[in-house]
Parts: sequence; C-alpha cells; structure tokens
Amino acid sequence: MQLGMIGLGRMGGNIVRRLLRDGHTAVVYDRNTEAVATLEKEGATAATSLEDLVAKLETPRAAWVMLPAGAITEETVTQLSGLMAEGDTIIDGGNSFWGDDVRRAAALKEKGLHYVDVGTSGGVWGLERGYCMMIGGDKEAVDRLDPIFRTLAPGLGDAPRTKGWDKHDPRAEQGYIHAGRSGAGHFVKMVHNGIEYGLMQAYAEGFDILKNAASGALPEDRRFDLNVAEIAEVWRRGSVVSSWLLDLTAEALAADGELEHFTGNVQDSGEGRWTINAAVEEAVPAPVLSAALYARFRSREKEVFADKLLSAMRKGFGGHVEPK
Amino acid sequence: MQLGMIGLGRMGGNIVRRLLRDGHTAVVYDRNTEAVATLEKEGATAATSLEDLVAKLETPRAAWVMLPAGAITEETVTQLSGLMAEGDTIIDGGNSFWGDDVRRAAALKEKGLHYVDVGTSGGVWGLERGYCMMIGGDKEAVDRLDPIFRTLAPGLGDAPRTKGWDKHDPRAEQGYIHAGRSGAGHFVKMVHNGIEYGLMQAYAEGFDILKNAASGALPEDRRFDLNVAEIAEVWRRGSVVSSWLLDLTAEALAADGELEHFTGNVQDSGEGRWTINAAVEEAVPAPVLSAALYARFRSREKEVFADKLLSAMRKGFGGHVEPK
Amino acid sequence: MQLGMIGLGRMGGNIVRRLLRDGHTAVVYDRNTEAVATLEKEGATAATSLEDLVAKLETPRAAWVMLPAGAITEETVTQLSGLMAEGDTIIDGGNSFWGDDVRRAAALKEKGLHYVDVGTSGGVWGLERGYCMMIGGDKEAVDRLDPIFRTLAPGLGDAPRTKGWDKHDPRAEQGYIHAGRSGAGHFVKMVHNGIEYGLMQAYAEGFDILKNAASGALPEDRRFDLNVAEIAEVWRRGSVVSSWLLDLTAEALAADGELEHFTGNVQDSGEGRWTINAAVEEAVPAPVLSAALYARFRSREKEVFADKLLSAMRKGFGGHVEPK
Amino acid sequence: MQLGMIGLGRMGGNIVRRLLRDGHTAVVYDRNTEAVATLEKEGATAATSLEDLVAKLETPRAAWVMLPAGAITEETVTQLSGLMAEGDTIIDGGNSFWGDDVRRAAALKEKGLHYVDVGTSGGVWGLERGYCMMIGGDKEAVDRLDPIFRTLAPGLGDAPRTKGWDKHDPRAEQGYIHAGRSGAGHFVKMVHNGIEYGLMQAYAEGFDILKNAASGALPEDRRFDLNVAEIAEVWRRGSVVSSWLLDLTAEALAADGELEHFTGNVQDSGEGRWTINAAVEEAVPAPVLSAALYARFRSREKEVFADKLLSAMRKGFGGHVEPK
Repeated sequence: MQLGMIGLGRMGGNIVRRLLRDGHTAVVYDRNTEAVATLEKEGATAATSLEDLVAKLETPRAAWVMLPAGAITEETVTQLSGLMAEGDTIIDGGNSFWGDDVRRAAALKEKGLHYVDVGTSGGVWGLERGYCMMIGGDKEAVDRLDPIFRTLAPGLGDAPRTKGWDKHDPRAEQGYIHAGRSGAGHFVKMVHNGIEYGLMQAYAEGFDILKNAASGALPEDRRFDLNVAEIAEVWRRGSVVSSWLLDLTAEALAADGELEHFTGNVQDSGEGRWTINAAVEEAVPAPVLSAALYARFRSREKEVFADKLLSAMRKGFGGHVEPK
Repeated sequence: MQLGMIGLGRMGGNIVRRLLRDGHTAVVYDRNTEAVATLEKEGATAATSLEDLVAKLETPRAAWVMLPAGAITEETVTQLSGLMAEGDTIIDGGNSFWGDDVRRAAALKEKGLHYVDVGTSGGVWGLERGYCMMIGGDKEAVDRLDPIFRTLAPGLGDAPRTKGWDKHDPRAEQGYIHAGRSGAGHFVKMVHNGIEYGLMQAYAEGFDILKNAASGALPEDRRFDLNVAEIAEVWRRGSVVSSWLLDLTAEALAADGELEHFTGNVQDSGEGRWTINAAVEEAVPAPVLSAALYARFRSREKEVFADKLLSAMRKGFGGHVEPK
Repeated sequence: MQLGMIGLGRMGGNIVRRLLRDGHTAVVYDRNTEAVATLEKEGATAATSLEDLVAKLETPRAAWVMLPAGAITEETVTQLSGLMAEGDTIIDGGNSFWGDDVRRAAALKEKGLHYVDVGTSGGVWGLERGYCMMIGGDKEAVDRLDPIFRTLAPGLGDAPRTKGWDKHDPRAEQGYIHAGRSGAGHFVKMVHNGIEYGLMQAYAEGFDILKNAASGALPEDRRFDLNVAEIAEVWRRGSVVSSWLLDLTAEALAADGELEHFTGNVQDSGEGRWTINAAVEEAVPAPVLSAALYARFRSREKEVFADKLLSAMRKGFGGHVEPK
Repeated sequence: MQLGMIGLGRMGGNIVRRLLRDGHTAVVYDRNTEAVATLEKEGATAATSLEDLVAKLETPRAAWVMLPAGAITEETVTQLSGLMAEGDTIIDGGNSFWGDDVRRAAALKEKGLHYVDVGTSGGVWGLERGYCMMIGGDKEAVDRLDPIFRTLAPGLGDAPRTKGWDKHDPRAEQGYIHAGRSGAGHFVKMVHNGIEYGLMQAYAEGFDILKNAASGALPEDRRFDLNVAEIAEVWRRGSVVSSWLLDLTAEALAADGELEHFTGNVQDSGEGRWTINAAVEEAVPAPVLSAALYARFRSREKEVFADKLLSAMRKGFGGHVEPK
C-alpha cells in the first residue's frame, strides 16, 4: 500500500527502503532536498512540500512523521492535520512523549482524522533486522495500516517460537503489537527504553568491576588481570546473560578492550526520564532504572555541587581537606 | 578423556551425560546411590566412595566436584586432596567464593596437585545448549582438560560470529575461557551473576511499570490497559532489549500474564552478594547491581524494622498514624 | 496585623493561635463550624463563609489558605480571587505543587491580586517551636506580610548563630526567607521534604542493620545483640549524626525498641515525588532521594509483580521454585 | 584516674587534654617527640617508648591506642600485649574494623588481658563538645574505665532529655554506651558512619537540585534563582531537617555559596564500606547508604570504564557518537 513519509533521516529513510523492497509505494518529503532525491532514485515519489505530499497521496491517506520529538514534530502534525481530510491518518513514529499523543489524538479526532503513535526500536539495524513496533491508536486505523507494519516488522526470524504463543495475537511474534489506545505505543516504547538503560548499566557496572579487578589499590593476592573481550564473547553462548546488547559489547571490546575512543559522556533521550516519571506517578519502585539514568547524568558532569558540599561538610566536622 | 564426577545433582548429572554423549568416559560418585545407579545405566562407571572413585581414575587423575558451595565442597576437596597423587587435578565446578579457590589452590600446590575452578552458567538448559564456562587455574591443568571443556561448551551455534574475533583466543567463541589464575573462573562467574541480577531487575521494574499503568490510582486519561505477554513477545525480535532472559519472560507471561503461581519471594545465591563486596573493595560504583540485590532481600521480608522507624518518625513530627 | 485564615486543621489552627498570642488579629473560616467556634473563643473573629471572611478583612486584605493541596486549594484560591479586590493578597501555605503557584500567580496578577506561596515546615510542633517558612512571591506583598512571618517564625532560639551570617539577609536566621518569585517557596519546601525523606531513610537503614546484627542467619561469632534505644540516645550528643529526626527516633525507641505499634506502611506526600521529577528535569543525579521514595512505595505493597517476574525467570533458567 | 595514650594526633591529643582538664592523669607516647613534648607542657607524663609508657602506668594498667586503623594499630596492640600484665586493659579508640576487635579480644583474653574497643565520634570538635563513645568489651574492664568515659563524654548539655529515658541506662544520655561484647563498639560506630554518609548525601543531592534550578537547560518559566546559603540557614530552626550537619552546611555556604575552594573529590574511610558489607551479610536492603558510598567513589573517578561501555553500546545499536 501507499505511505507518505515526512523526515528522511536514518530511521525514516530506511523505513521507506524496507517498504519499497516489499512492493509498497511511498511519497517522501524532507527539508533536505538531497535526501528526497536519493530516495526518489530508489523508487519513491518525491514531494516538494507537505502540501505536495498530501496532494500526491491517495485517500484515505496515511502520512508517517519521522522527526525529532518535540517542537518540530508538533508543528508538522499540526500542519498536516490542516491539510488532510476526514478518514486520513497521521502516524508519529518518532520518540514523542505519550502525553502529547493523547492530546493530539483528541484534537485530530474532532476533525475526523486518525492518529497512530508508533514506538519503533531497531536503530541503524532496522533496515536489515526489521523494526520492532509498539502501536497505539484506534483499531480501524491500525488495522488498515497492517500491511505496512507487517513489512516493517522483523518477522519470526531465527528466534525460537514462544511455547503457547498460538493462543495469543500472532502479530506480537512477527514483531509488532497494537498496544492500545493513542499514546499506548509510545508508552510501551518509553518503558522499553527505560529497561534498555537498566540493562546497559548492569553490563557496564559488571565490566567495570572486572576491569578494576587488576587495580593496584587491591592487595596483590586479591587482584585478577582479566581479558574483558574474552569474557564478553564467552557469555554470548549458553550463559544466562546473553543478549543483543552483549553481542554489541563483545564487538566493541573485541576491537579495543580499553574502549579508548569513547568519551563516556553518555547522552539520554526523553524516554529514560519519562519512565522514571511514570514509575513515580504509579508509585512503583524503580531503583535500577533510576540508577541507570542517574549514571548517565553523572557521566556528563565535570564539577558536581553535591560533591563539593560533601567536601565542605567533611572539612566542617573533621578538618579534612580533600586532595585534588 | 576420563573424568571423575562427585555430585550428581541436576548440574553434575547432566555434565556427565553431555560428556558420555561425546565419547568421553566418567567415574561417578554421589551419596545418593540412586543417582549413581541411574548414570551407571547411561554408561558411567559407578564409584561407591571417594576412595573408590580415586582408585578407578587413571593418572593423572581429574576429579570434578559439583556440590553446593560451602562446607560440603570444602570437605570434599580436602578429602580428595588426601587421596590423590602428584600431578592430579581437582576441579571445583560449583558456585564457590573465589577467595576459597585462591586458598585451596595454594594448599594443593604444596602437595603437587592442580586446582581448577570452573564457573558454569547454563542451568537446567546446559545439557541441551551446552555450558558456558569461565575457568581459573594453571595453564598446564587447564590445557590438559581442554577436551572436556570443548565438549561441555555450547560451541558456535546459531549466534553470529563477532567481527574481528579471529584475532582473539578461539575458545571464547566456543563458549569457554581460561580467565586466569586460580579463582579467576569463579570471580568472572560471580560478576556474571551480579549482572544477571541487574538485567533481571531491569526487566522486572519495566514490566511492573507497564502492569501498573492501569492502576486505579491514576487519573483515567493517564491509564493504559496493557497486555504484558504481547509486549514481552514483541520485544524478542528486532528490539534493543532482546535477550535470553526476555525469551524466558515471554514464555512465563504467555502462560499467565498475572504470574499468579509465583510467590515473589526471590532467593539470592552468594554471587550477587560477593559482587557487591568486590565493587566496594575496588571502589567501583555499582548502584544497579546493588539495587537488584536489595530488591531480592526486600522481597523476602514481611515486617521491616526500617519502615516501622519511618512510621515512628512521621508520627513524631507530624502526628501521622500510618494506615494498616 | 490582620490575617484571614481559611482551613483550621492542625496547621491552620495553630498558625492562628501563634499569631493571636503575639498580638495579631485573625478572621477565620472552615467548613467545620466547630473548629471556627473553638478559635473564636481563643480570640479570633469567626466567618461563616468565604464571602463573610473577605467582608470582615480590612484592605489591602491578606487571606491565608491552609488546605490540602490539590482540588480544594485550587477551588478556594479561585473563589477567593473572585471576591477580593486589587492590591489584596492570597497566601497558599499548604503543600501545593510549585507549578500550580506559577500558574495561579500569573492569573491573579491579571486581576491586580498578589499571590504568595509559603512552604511551611514544623508539623505539630510549630505552635511551640515556630514555623520554618520558605516564601515565594513579589517583594511588595512579601514585605507587607513581614510582621506575620516574623511572628510565625521560630526566631534565633537556642541554635548557635552561623559564623558570618551578619553579611546575609537577617530573616533567614529568624527562620523564614523570601526564596524568590511565585513558586519559589513551594519549590524550596519540596526539596526540603525530598531531603527529609533521604535523612529518614538513612537512619532507618542504619537502625535496620543494627537490629539485624543479632540475626540467627549470621554465624554466631559475627552476631551482636544491640540496644537500639541506647544507640539512638547516645548519638544525640556530640556525634556527627545528631539531628531533630534523631531526637524523635530516640524518643520512639525509648518507648519501644521493637516499634511494635507501627505498621510500616509509610505514606508519601507529593513533595518527595516532585523532587525526583525536578531532579530528572534538571539532569541532577538523586540516587539517595529516589531510593528513599521507593522504599516508601515498596513498604505499602503486598504483592509485587516485579518480584513475581524475577521468580518466573529464575524458574525458567534454573528450575528454581521459590519458597513461600 | 590514670590513662596511657599512644598516638597524639588531633584525636589522641585532645582526648588527653579533656582528661587532664577534668583532673585525670595521663602518660603519653607518640613517635613524634614534639607532640609528646607539647602535651608534657600541658601536664601529661611523657614516655619515650611503649616500654617506657607501660613502665610508667600503675596496675591494673589502661592504655588507649589512638592510631590509624590497620597495620600500625595491629602492631601496636600486639606489642603492648607483650609488655602488659594480667588484668591490664588495651583500648582501641581508632576506626578499626570490628572483626579485628573480635580476633584481638580473644587473643588478649588468653593472656589475661582485657580489650576494649571504643568507636569515637566528635572529630575536631570533641575537645569542646565532648566525644560520643560506643564501647565494646567485657563489663569488668568497661566499668573500671567509667571515670575516663564520663569525662570524655559530652554530658547532657543543651539537648532536651528524651521522654522516658529514666527507665534506661543513664550513660547513654551522657553520651557513651556499653554496646556489648568486644567489637560491638566499632560495629555501632561503623553503622554511625554509614548513616553519616547517607545523611550527607541527602543534603548534597537536595542542594544540588536547588542550585541547578537556575539551569539554562530548563525552560525559562521553570527556573528559579535560589540563594542556597539562605536556604541552609532557614532550615536550621523549626524545620524537620535541622541537624548538626546542616549547621556545618550553613556555615560553609554562608562563607561561599559556590563552594569554589572545594575539590569535590570525596574520600571515604573504611566504615562506609564495612556498613554495606554488613548489610549484605545480614540481607538488609541499604539502598541509601550504598548510593551515598557510590557517590563518593564516583566523585574521585575521572575516566569511567562503565560509561565508555555505555557509549560503545550506543554507537553499536544507534550509531550515536557521544560528544566530548
């Protein structure tokens, strides 16, 4: 079927490619005309503006917005909603906050438009592995877009089937779900990323302990000089901690066990933060997910007021002057 | 080659089976004579005592102890070391504390015996998937036992090879490593389990947030009624959080999305605790691994003195009387 | 000077009493007519409605709202703002979210009204010890109300003066500050409560460790049978951890070292949650404050889905069945 | 009564001074002869060696070792035990690990010597405020030394008496307790310091949130420009978070609200670490105390392997290159 795509960055561009390869058609738009031209060569229909894109889509239209979450997505959805007609659907496949989805869906519904939020995981590997999608919106719109989702999803692949899955919705084992009403897709994706932070930090702490087992600060008979690249590799098969993130870890450590080219200034996107906000709102303890987020905050700080205050108190009660 | 096995529980028994299937021979002993008889029928040589087992092994002997960590392993290693002769090797494949390995290896070395510690991951799946092994000990003994390890290890399997691994030790991608001197095997296994706790808790918190998104305590427009079984399943393919632990989660949730048959009194073995001790000794921050361990401690408590003290303070300054 | 007080609960009533004792006058209103009558006997002027209260106040009026944060405070502020005239001031002394203050102050400003938010600490002890107040709002209104704040504040008291404070605003050492624009008062009070949670949890964990030092699960030579009441008492003098919260702890433990009458279902008010949200928004790591909040959440849970999921995974990979 | 003091640093020297002022006598020794000479001028009897010190003490002797925990304390206790006679007492007033006390007490008991461990809080303020002491050892020795402890303790001071304390041991409200058998004193002091870390970190995080409320990264209408010196000062009176640590904080912030002269490389002594080990051994959740310790570890790290690993994974799945 036909899909309009607004935003042809790494994610948007590859989503179009994966659709074209499977026989779908696409009308594409980006402020970067080069990105549009590239995809046109690969078989997409180029649009020169949002108006042009809407004009080139057959009704009922489906336009996927794949832009950075925040002001630009908001603006684009608003503009599109002014151009589209009853029965059309706007899809937000970016990393929007689920609360924005709830609000937008209500506003679009008044105009007779559908709003579908798609949390998309897969990163740069999606073109090849497929995209894992968590979808929120009304059943009618989600069902109509099913051919799109089926193509983008990874499919069964090599992963062994879960025992007893035949009693459940078959879409989940293809790699996409209809999570619920508008906002549900991004809500689930938000928690996905919260978990992702936690998993990453668990590995990071473990490898830090392994790396520091050779520390000169330890008594000599308590030191081990370990090869972290071999350790990551050996855990990939048969161990309880095997995962795709471990595969990536193994690859990075195989290339350089010291990770010297990495800064360690770790960014965070909104989802990790919103996950903590959701946990707090629900009164659910989330110590691991919080700790993972805080480790990222801390990684980017050079001077920490909190630490200075500790030093100041230590000086106050003990006369301690902290070394540089 | 030939191996002696002491301890024929779930792990020890299946290790013997996997060896027999690949053409090795085994002399087996357990205080439970039934377990010995079962394996004898499957092709192992039965021993009626440690003395008998040692007598039936060809020199240089290799005896694998697969017993609960602690007093019984300690006693068995000590007894064995009195029965064995120069050049023989004792293997501890259980979950011993690495510090005990260091001590035992030194004691055995004085008698001319080798001591090899093997951290083994794989649980009940090892017979089928193979065992991921982290090995500590002197090179001579570890190399001599290589045929055993090669058979027990999972091998390359389906997992894609790590880019650039050809420049590294090939054993790691077969699923076993020589981690270093005595104790290194259990040290690495210890951190493995520490990470395991962290990963598990990351998933647990995330699914708890998903489950509680329908909580009646939330304003109605902020609630989502999510299907956690579908969510676990969909993340198995193409998402960043896919892992073997997620596979197990998906299977459990497919069977019962409420997990009603589970008590939630979560046990912990020594490794999670030792990992925190190691982090503290190395001065490495391990907030996620600690939080994961504490969640288990807390899961088993009914009345918490700390909580009562909070209630008492709240009453003291605010007159608050906490509801039941 | 004269103050109107709406809400005569524990806090509001005692605030009026402290004002009356120092020669101020008060017009008081509460839906509970008994509370109004009681204070009338103590010298306050009774009002039968918000309208009546406003009518009985001299211009420029000052009306203090001391009600539970949320809908009822919102409603009352809105109603009052419809009754009052240019130059009048509405004070919210409850535990409102600072964001609500920002919004309300802007709305009231359009009507020529002042809005002052007062974060108030002191609990049931305020009548006797005085109230520590953190005030947000425009300088004009805050300065006009100064006689009220000066009376309510604890004053210098026994606490030794801070070296060098003569170079700073003298109000702070009297126990009240003008923290900044509208919302600043409640923002500072919010963080105050966040810290309070952290301090309480630090003591709670420490005393839990002391209490469990006698645990039968420890080897006998590692057990101590400690008297927590004596420990709390001894730390009150000369130690680094002395504090008012420790005083309260000592009193509770002196009465019952087992704290048997406390449920340990620890409530949390909004401030602890908002503090975490603020930390997350500012990208400031707040592991201690988060852990303190989560301990309260956890204290109120009987069945934890997260824990059940851990049990389910443990069964999945190791066949472990958790005991009841 | 008479006391021998070995170690005349900040703590040991002032302990002697406080004793002399109250009419006790002291024999003092330190490798630093200048420190000995100074105290001799203040009325102490100088010793030129451990042997000399022992010779100058009347039987039954009492010698207080006030040296850095670890090798030097161990060695001194051992040497002293060789010089002293049945019925004599060795006191370790330093920051020793409680397990060392248990071991030493057993060894000394075989020689008929008493061993008393004294956890001492008070820092540089002890001379003036008195020392809060937690004492472990046999009743006979602890009772005999009571005049010493009574003099060193702060006494009732200004702190209001705890309601109902008359039913408890009066020593606690004087500022010292007999906590239990050997090791109990340092065990309680260890937890004291663990709590201290937690309290300090709670304040530190809170003030960090206050300081960063003006961050340019926040939307302008969500920023507050707060005066942290005033906030610390105002909380000292009438608020729930008042404490001695807050007094010190207020003093530091009054001098410089930016704390520019502090490095923020926060040291930790053994007690914070041992507290976590104790919590882990007892299976008591201690998330706040752990987080406080980890914040100190992290404060001293410049390059964190864990953070680099996070960057490496992020590059692996998303192509993210972290900025410097």
